[in-house]
Amino acid sequence: MEDIDLFWVIIASALLFLMQAGFLCLETGMTRSKNNINVAIKNFCDFCVSALAFWVLGFGLMYGLSYHGWIGMDLFSLDFSKAPPSLAVFFLFQVMFCVTSVTILSGIVAERMKFGTYLFVAVIVSGLLYPVAGHWSWAGRWGSEGTGWLAELGFVDFAGSTVVHSVGGWAGLALVLIVGPRLGRFDDGSGSKAITPSNMPTATLGALLLFIGWLGFNGGSTLVLNETVPSILINTVVGGCVGAMSAGGLRYAVNQRLDVDQFINGALGGLVAVTANCFAVSTGSAALIGLVGGMIVVFISQLLETFKIDDAVGAIPVHLGAGIWGTLATGLYGDLETLGTGLNRFEQIGVQGLGVLVYGIWTFGVAYFVFYAGNAVFRFRVSEEEEIVGLNISELGVHQENEMHASRVMLDRMLP
Amino acid sequence: MEDIDLFWVIIASALLFLMQAGFLCLETGMTRSKNNINVAIKNFCDFCVSALAFWVLGFGLMYGLSYHGWIGMDLFSLDFSKAPPSLAVFFLFQVMFCVTSVTILSGIVAERMKFGTYLFVAVIVSGLLYPVAGHWSWAGRWGSEGTGWLAELGFVDFAGSTVVHSVGGWAGLALVLIVGPRLGRFDDGSGSKAITPSNMPTATLGALLLFIGWLGFNGGSTLVLNETVPSILINTVVGGCVGAMSAGGLRYAVNQRLDVDQFINGALGGLVAVTANCFAVSTGSAALIGLVGGMIVVFISQLLETFKIDDAVGAIPVHLGAGIWGTLATGLYGDLETLGTGLNRFEQIGVQGLGVLVYGIWTFGVAYFVFYAGNAVFRFRVSEEEEIVGLNISELGVHQENEMHASRVMLDRMLP
Amino acid sequence: MEDIDLFWVIIASALLFLMQAGFLCLETGMTRSKNNINVAIKNFCDFCVSALAFWVLGFGLMYGLSYHGWIGMDLFSLDFSKAPPSLAVFFLFQVMFCVTSVTILSGIVAERMKFGTYLFVAVIVSGLLYPVAGHWSWAGRWGSEGTGWLAELGFVDFAGSTVVHSVGGWAGLALVLIVGPRLGRFDDGSGSKAITPSNMPTATLGALLLFIGWLGFNGGSTLVLNETVPSILINTVVGGCVGAMSAGGLRYAVNQRLDVDQFINGALGGLVAVTANCFAVSTGSAALIGLVGGMIVVFISQLLETFKIDDAVGAIPVHLGAGIWGTLATGLYGDLETLGTGLNRFEQIGVQGLGVLVYGIWTFGVAYFVFYAGNAVFRFRVSEEEEIVGLNISELGVHQENEMHASRVMLDRMLP
Repeated sequence: MEDIDLFWVIIASALLFLMQAGFLCLETGMTRSKNNINVAIKNFCDFCVSALAFWVLGFGLMYGLSYHGWIGMDLFSLDFSKAPPSLAVFFLFQVMFCVTSVTILSGIVAERMKFGTYLFVAVIVSGLLYPVAGHWSWAGRWGSEGTGWLAELGFVDFAGSTVVHSVGGWAGLALVLIVGPRLGRFDDGSGSKAITPSNMPTATLGALLLFIGWLGFNGGSTLVLNETVPSILINTVVGGCVGAMSAGGLRYAVNQRLDVDQFINGALGGLVAVTANCFAVSTGSAALIGLVGGMIVVFISQLLETFKIDDAVGAIPVHLGAGIWGTLATGLYGDLETLGTGLNRFEQIGVQGLGVLVYGIWTFGVAYFVFYAGNAVFRFRVSEEEEIVGLNISELGVHQENEMHASRVMLDRMLP
Repeated sequence: MEDIDLFWVIIASALLFLMQAGFLCLETGMTRSKNNINVAIKNFCDFCVSALAFWVLGFGLMYGLSYHGWIGMDLFSLDFSKAPPSLAVFFLFQVMFCVTSVTILSGIVAERMKFGTYLFVAVIVSGLLYPVAGHWSWAGRWGSEGTGWLAELGFVDFAGSTVVHSVGGWAGLALVLIVGPRLGRFDDGSGSKAITPSNMPTATLGALLLFIGWLGFNGGSTLVLNETVPSILINTVVGGCVGAMSAGGLRYAVNQRLDVDQFINGALGGLVAVTANCFAVSTGSAALIGLVGGMIVVFISQLLETFKIDDAVGAIPVHLGAGIWGTLATGLYGDLETLGTGLNRFEQIGVQGLGVLVYGIWTFGVAYFVFYAGNAVFRFRVSEEEEIVGLNISELGVHQENEMHASRVMLDRMLP
Repeated sequence: MEDIDLFWVIIASALLFLMQAGFLCLETGMTRSKNNINVAIKNFCDFCVSALAFWVLGFGLMYGLSYHGWIGMDLFSLDFSKAPPSLAVFFLFQVMFCVTSVTILSGIVAERMKFGTYLFVAVIVSGLLYPVAGHWSWAGRWGSEGTGWLAELGFVDFAGSTVVHSVGGWAGLALVLIVGPRLGRFDDGSGSKAITPSNMPTATLGALLLFIGWLGFNGGSTLVLNETVPSILINTVVGGCVGAMSAGGLRYAVNQRLDVDQFINGALGGLVAVTANCFAVSTGSAALIGLVGGMIVVFISQLLETFKIDDAVGAIPVHLGAGIWGTLATGLYGDLETLGTGLNRFEQIGVQGLGVLVYGIWTFGVAYFVFYAGNAVFRFRVSEEEEIVGLNISELGVHQENEMHASRVMLDRMLP
């Protein structure tokens, strides 16, 4: 095998896998301990079912022989022991992208969805929504014939600001509109009420693990270990660092508050924002893109509050908000020669905007429709009583030391 | 140096090292906070003493010049600054295998063994039990003359379903029979009583870290970065994912319970099951092997309850149960040409069964004898009072915020 | 690009990044939950600001064209998309060293410094103190013209026992003298009072992550994947393992106590001690150096108590104490040919001692002066009330489940 390139992608896959641990820490830390087992085990199991759904169905839809740039038609349920090593490595890397996209949803709707219905959602996203959307931009990346129709137009999304992050964000937005806010989050007329997180240091650890994993996310997306990789890695680090400072700083400037969430989510926003373009921008541009990415996180967080949309971990601002920005920034700041689409600056910006729009319509539209129907059949949400008691006990029947304490506190508050 | 192959094994070693962090999280999360420092520091220190014991003694016994396939006779206490780089890399990788096998024990007997006596156990396993057992299958892997007697017969255990996992499981079973169940676990006649875990999200994080590390465990066991590696990695991922769903699903089907333990341990069971055979089976077979591996975890867990054997984290079902299954599955599903033993299907299954038996007799037998004698001399277990107060305070004298709270709760329950 | 060497350094950088996660766990675990968000977010943000300060200023000062061996004069604020890949990879690796050095400070002065003033300190260390000090030993490592004046004299510090660890330790010592001990730590005349840690298993996890990351720290410092790397990695593992046992064992021998801190910090001390010399000593010498490194941790910990210096996580014994020892040990045990300085044993020991002295004077002197001035202007420390309530609530306004409980307990103790 062409050793070093495949080797690099294998390592990148392991780094991406670490992002699952990052999401787990981020999400359990930001939610309440009465639900934290539920949050953790959903993260664990969505990895398992999504990886399998992507193997059976999704990978073929995304990277199989293209039907006019719209959908893939082979490579389903492959036996990789008989496949070329390069295809197996490519699958390994792609399966980690797919589960990342899915896991984004779990955070948004944490603390109120049934375990089983969440797995249904995970299968829909990993087996259908994500791979079809991905095909339009990334078909042919492994070598199957055909190009996605958006890529054909010149749409560029290097490592998935839109294809992975926005898709996860759009689907999550659809889902949160259907399941609704957590009890007590927007109850009275006076606006939102913060929900006490269980463990912010764990959430911060999660953000660090995500940051580390992002080296694989962006660095591996070249699929070869070429001379662009080092600059990509530095752009990733710079984008994330600036994003943290810009979101945290903006929140401090406006509200005179040091807001831990915003430092963390700002970093992630910066990372999402450079994801689409880190191969084609200067280090300074990466800093600028991260700067705006961080600000967008603060702005969209505020917007969600205004519209009473309850995103439990702030994933919509990060993955959808900064994802859109990163996709547009590719048109604004990307070196046209490196992008290699043959478009001029205005055309490139236009097609990036078109891509943002198309992904929004497809993902949000289909997700809303399917989840609406699914909810009608299965009822996605736990009962009010179950939510008050907490999903650890009500759904999983697990009594856990700190969580017993915490739910007692919670009940004390609820009861007269 | 033959760069890329050694490089791959170095990376695999780092991934394996991460499994120590995984075990730490898994075991501290599944146990009570009044003992969790004790659990954590045992995991940390057993790494340290086992690595040193393996350097001084074990490595030579396992990989030194073979005495008729039974035991190694050189390579003790090597100075690696003078050794060939390939030997040093091989040692680094092998030391991580050894500590994995040892760490399995720590979980099984958590919450009741003295720190010092546990280190004694760790030295016995890493310096004697594991390396001698390993020699029989893996002697000559680095290049010393001689082949283990089981390998000579055609026994195949690629990355250690038996050599690492079952050996740890058998030794742990012997140990748990000697130290006995935790207080309160099987006290009344009405069967078992679950013990409240301190932090299941941490345990879930641990399972994820173990899963990530397993890429190195299985992927590195080729010792070269050849074209089999990508398929091995995918078989590993598929085996683990299917195992989680099969164990969790089976438990749900039987008991109508979503059981977090079973999802986690099912994944680990699936991973253990494919460990012996992932280089020689199709992706579909890996899924099947993982499926059965997960079911075996559920079944053996039940069996342990019936026999009132108190495995604090469920490591016996995972490492011993699924380890035996994976070893047999190598005979059942392994591609005979890839196995390369020259045996036919029936002979291969036979010799795999023989290996299972031999390892059981050796490891359980010697472990039981040595631990029985050790226990007679040192008394492995803490006193009843120490166990009730918790090992954090009674053994380590560490007062820790949440643990103070937890032990008070525990005392409250015990006292009238 | 010369693939494999750059690839190795990229991987080493990712491993080093993991050390940030390790520090976060170590420090939040060893401190109280009323401050743990503050500790975590400081660790996260010091990474961000330090990485940026190093990019803008520090990297040039450290590795730019040398002005007579004292300071670098170019390579500021580079655009890495236009730079040679080897320079970009080198920067990535070096930025992780820089943030490691900075993070050492955060632990020492945890639980009493304001967030904003700590970031000021981080910028001073990463943008000025560390890079200038580093230049004296490591200038020219990437290829810019010139050699540091200490390196010119024959001073050897392979991976930074002094350049990274002692520098962090000296700066931290200066800082802790200025901010003073935590309330209640040395209040009465009867000596020190231990402060209850929040979560020692998390701290132990942190130590494990640091240990894993150290493979990159030392292994990557060759900057090429040559035949020395495997022995370096083994020396690292052996040094850390022996350090844990020696510190823990010494404390047990003297005080009849199993002291979790000392096992953990002993391992880190052993790791720091071999950092300077792991490329030039035998495995046996690494064990000896780790042994003494662990003992020094115990000794210096005691010394700090005696002088009523309140190092919240024991980072001064580890990074400064064992760092000095490791630097001297390079002279004592290093293979002179491998060191390649042309000095004889006595000269080598002498120049190592000179280096220790010079770094102490520079770092402690400048740090004390700058921090003293900074403190006069900004007042580094929170108010007494804020410290009692805890920095999570008083500084960050974050109410967190377990921390609400903990601060109430704390207040209960303080109030009559």
